[in-house]
Amino acid sequence: MQSNEIIKCILSRTSVRRFTQAPVSPVQIDTILHAAMSAPTGVNRQPWEYYVIQNKEILKKLAAALPYAKMVANAPVAILVCGDTSRFLDGEDSTLWVQDLSASSENILLAAHALGLGGVWTCIYPHADRMEAAREILSIPNSLVPFNLIPIGQPMTEGNPMKKYTSAKIHTI
Amino acid sequence: MQSNEIIKCILSRTSVRRFTQAPVSPVQIDTILHAAMSAPTGVNRQPWEYYVIQNKEILKKLAAALPYAKMVANAPVAILVCGDTSRFLDGEDSTLWVQDLSASSENILLAAHALGLGGVWTCIYPHADRMEAAREILSIPNSLVPFNLIPIGQPMTEGNPMKKYTSAKIHTI
Repeated sequence: MQSNEIIKCILSRTSVRRFTQAPVSPVQIDTILHAAMSAPTGVNRQPWEYYVIQNKEILKKLAAALPYAKMVANAPVAILVCGDTSRFLDGEDSTLWVQDLSASSENILLAAHALGLGGVWTCIYPHADRMEAAREILSIPNSLVPFNLIPIGQPMTEGNPMKKYTSAKIHTI
Repeated sequence: MQSNEIIKCILSRTSVRRFTQAPVSPVQIDTILHAAMSAPTGVNRQPWEYYVIQNKEILKKLAAALPYAKMVANAPVAILVCGDTSRFLDGEDSTLWVQDLSASSENILLAAHALGLGGVWTCIYPHADRMEAAREILSIPNSLVPFNLIPIGQPMTEGNPMKKYTSAKIHTI
């Protein structure tokens, strides 16, 4: 059954922090970005933009500035996911962009895994210091909010998915 | 290439709001919940619980009480995703559970689509009135935060994915 391969992909994804030096191709990056922009968003606002960083010096600067993103220095590419404030909703819905970008980020990780690559979600938002560091290094305009940074590359080793499923977390009604 | 099927699944997912009366099997529900709990979470807190609702009366009550969840009344099953406050992080990381649950929700939608089913993310959090309504109808304890409600079923019609990809949202560095 075709669907088994997809379920297998979702269940076997792991956070990949060590990469070989194998390059990530432009087609692979484009496929991952198509997946990123296929996530659902509140009121279809699509409040996202993406920085695709392959410049080694910039990757090293980000790794040095962001506390949990050291592995970015050794990744062939990293994607910085940003919120586009001009597309944020108003009032009580003004924080929904966080949910939208998180769904988009999961699509990035799954698409990378589907392509035989791997990545890891390194958190930027809501940490003011990390947001400021990313903004400065990449000259990000004030209209965008740095959300997370996802290094992507060929995994150094095969991942061993954590067993996280537990029936104790399920309530049947 | 196997990965093509996975990418195709991510790109072809649509929000499904009309369902046939075909049942969703226990195995399908369990597969979807495995996918839900395979998402990455900040500091591996896994701050989630899931209400799986198949009781028709309860589904109708939720549909009546939640403004954008009318289709829940006609779904064979709906999953209410909740945050587990006992697993929330402290300080500036205290809102990361929203990112975790959003990644989990995207996995639910993708797994449903992979199984030939469909669903739609109906927003509860951060709307106080919706959270209170869900809490009351399902007798949810105060230790859990109702996050969203995802009705799932066999799609009435084939979905037509929106074209959301645009290169204008990509910055290459």
